[in-house]
Amino acid sequence: MSITLSLGPRVRKSPYFEAARKAGLAAASVYNHMYMPTGYGDPAAEYDRLVNGVAMWDVAVERQVALKGPDALALARYLTPRNLDGLAIGQGKYAPICNYEGALINDPVLLQVSDDEIWLSIADSDIKLWAGGIAGARGMDVRVFEPDVSPLAIQGPKSFDVVADLCGDWIRELRYFGFRDHDLDGIPVVVARSGWSKQGGFEFYLRDGSRGEELWNLVAEAGKPYGIGPGTPNYVERVESGLISYGADTDDMSNPFEYGLGKFMDVDQEGDFAGKEALRLIRDAGVTRRFMGLLIEGEPFATTNESPWQLSNSDGAYAGYASASAWSPRANSNIAVAMVSVEAIESGNGVVVHTEAGDLKAQVVELPII
Amino acid sequence: MSITLSLGPRVRKSPYFEAARKAGLAAASVYNHMYMPTGYGDPAAEYDRLVNGVAMWDVAVERQVALKGPDALALARYLTPRNLDGLAIGQGKYAPICNYEGALINDPVLLQVSDDEIWLSIADSDIKLWAGGIAGARGMDVRVFEPDVSPLAIQGPKSFDVVADLCGDWIRELRYFGFRDHDLDGIPVVVARSGWSKQGGFEFYLRDGSRGEELWNLVAEAGKPYGIGPGTPNYVERVESGLISYGADTDDMSNPFEYGLGKFMDVDQEGDFAGKEALRLIRDAGVTRRFMGLLIEGEPFATTNESPWQLSNSDGAYAGYASASAWSPRANSNIAVAMVSVEAIESGNGVVVHTEAGDLKAQVVELPII
Repeated sequence: MSITLSLGPRVRKSPYFEAARKAGLAAASVYNHMYMPTGYGDPAAEYDRLVNGVAMWDVAVERQVALKGPDALALARYLTPRNLDGLAIGQGKYAPICNYEGALINDPVLLQVSDDEIWLSIADSDIKLWAGGIAGARGMDVRVFEPDVSPLAIQGPKSFDVVADLCGDWIRELRYFGFRDHDLDGIPVVVARSGWSKQGGFEFYLRDGSRGEELWNLVAEAGKPYGIGPGTPNYVERVESGLISYGADTDDMSNPFEYGLGKFMDVDQEGDFAGKEALRLIRDAGVTRRFMGLLIEGEPFATTNESPWQLSNSDGAYAGYASASAWSPRANSNIAVAMVSVEAIESGNGVVVHTEAGDLKAQVVELPII
Repeated sequence: MSITLSLGPRVRKSPYFEAARKAGLAAASVYNHMYMPTGYGDPAAEYDRLVNGVAMWDVAVERQVALKGPDALALARYLTPRNLDGLAIGQGKYAPICNYEGALINDPVLLQVSDDEIWLSIADSDIKLWAGGIAGARGMDVRVFEPDVSPLAIQGPKSFDVVADLCGDWIRELRYFGFRDHDLDGIPVVVARSGWSKQGGFEFYLRDGSRGEELWNLVAEAGKPYGIGPGTPNYVERVESGLISYGADTDDMSNPFEYGLGKFMDVDQEGDFAGKEALRLIRDAGVTRRFMGLLIEGEPFATTNESPWQLSNSDGAYAGYASASAWSPRANSNIAVAMVSVEAIESGNGVVVHTEAGDLKAQVVELPII
């Protein structure tokens, strides 16, 4: 039986929440202390719009943590193993954040928005507390706060046309994670080429929460000729694409090397950063599990898994967990993303997935699956 | 129209989740990255059980942050303005936590569970990140982590009988926030006299997440003679009692003095702690708003408010916000908890509450309302 999401004053509503409701919001979760739309009642149509057309998503839950002041860049450098040499206004960088044990605690996109202000566009954990605690303990001259910024995503192959119609053709020149301030019919936004899908797209970082419904309606109207409709970060597409969902795919001991994020880190850089010592040891030791794809046998899954599924080797030993699964129309198979032991990967024998409905055999493949 | 809570691998299930489902869980939210039951479909019966009988609540979302190691106490002292002189194993303390600006970022109960281990039994924010960031930045010899501990609350006047039947009459001697390790038919728990209601009660801090259903069933069975039934932190009772709900009643600038928490703080103590300087300034300046009760005119509210309601003075000026409202059977009135400007309180003229259904007059009263 389905459980009703209770709405109360503790969890925040996005500036787009009432618009999303009017558009038929059917299901939601909570992310960064804010309601996160997860479905409008027609998963097949929502998937199709994302993959073949264009969809608009309320992703205001992708909150920003602003670092502002003379030490903003110094704090940012201390927070991420990514080398921030050459950071420039207008070009975002994916910047994993680790704790002092080298475990991943968030994987934001980092945007320098002005000379003394940097935003971390975060996944679901209170990085404001992590960054603020470190800044205070180190006596840094920087303010850490959540600004009034709420992303609305426009995703899918036709998103370029929609956003060009709204903003002008300059948006076609934006590089991936590139961004620019823009005045959209008087609504202050940052236009970024980004979004949590591999189908191409943009995010409008709305800079005035009181104008959410206005922005939503503007996008809905501009998207009409292209068949735009509401959607959400798409469960199926993200598994196909192998996008990391922090908190779903990760656990308390996840380190970035396990997710192939070594290329975004410079653990040998001169400056100090949180987790440097631990990450160097982890890098030298190598990983014992990796973030992989699974092709799972059996009848098409009707629903996604509610909880992670354990994996075994062919000999029955523990081999990791599948975090998110789905029937993939494009792979024409059940698929999953999973943390798989290096031993099981290297054996080439696949794994057994322990689902509530029974055990299923699976092949282990590199990501992305599609 | 109601929104379905989507269940997926990102949000954790409590060890009692499946038991709660079998017991008829109807509504839930998310708290500390875990599903939090909020209703079993019969609010009147759930309220009655709490106020006149006994109820059992899955409150595993009240996660613990463990500080373990030689510097555990030093870190705890640095994290809270509460004076921890005389802290002893077996006696918990309410210990507000503030950031360096003096704003409240959580209000846990602090429990010293062994010589080198302290738990913070937290409200809804990632204090693990705050504490871990500070410990790392200050180079302290302490590990910060979330242990496998999941509270189950037994609340209401008859909870004493239920817990005495289960554990023995010694539980009647526990002081408020007192706690003790206990072996409950082989299940390891900490028994604490605590819980988020003013109706009296206990919490079993389950120390082995694999045994949640077993503990749930044990309590359900022991409670049968007393008419126990499932419940949740109760929206109506908490407003009547004026309990603070961090995140609902607070905002980014809330300071503990506004909530009458001055008595739990010692901002003049010798040792340093996060926010000391700011809190001394705030203490000296005095507060401009206070956490108060409202008695609101009009027909009984059928539902709680989804979002905070703004308040005005009789002259129309902004006077704060009501965070949570309800019809109170015991007050025989609509009631709310609210942040009210000192000016409006001192005027004695009451406030106007701006609800979605129109403006309502309210009288401002001290907490608790009942």
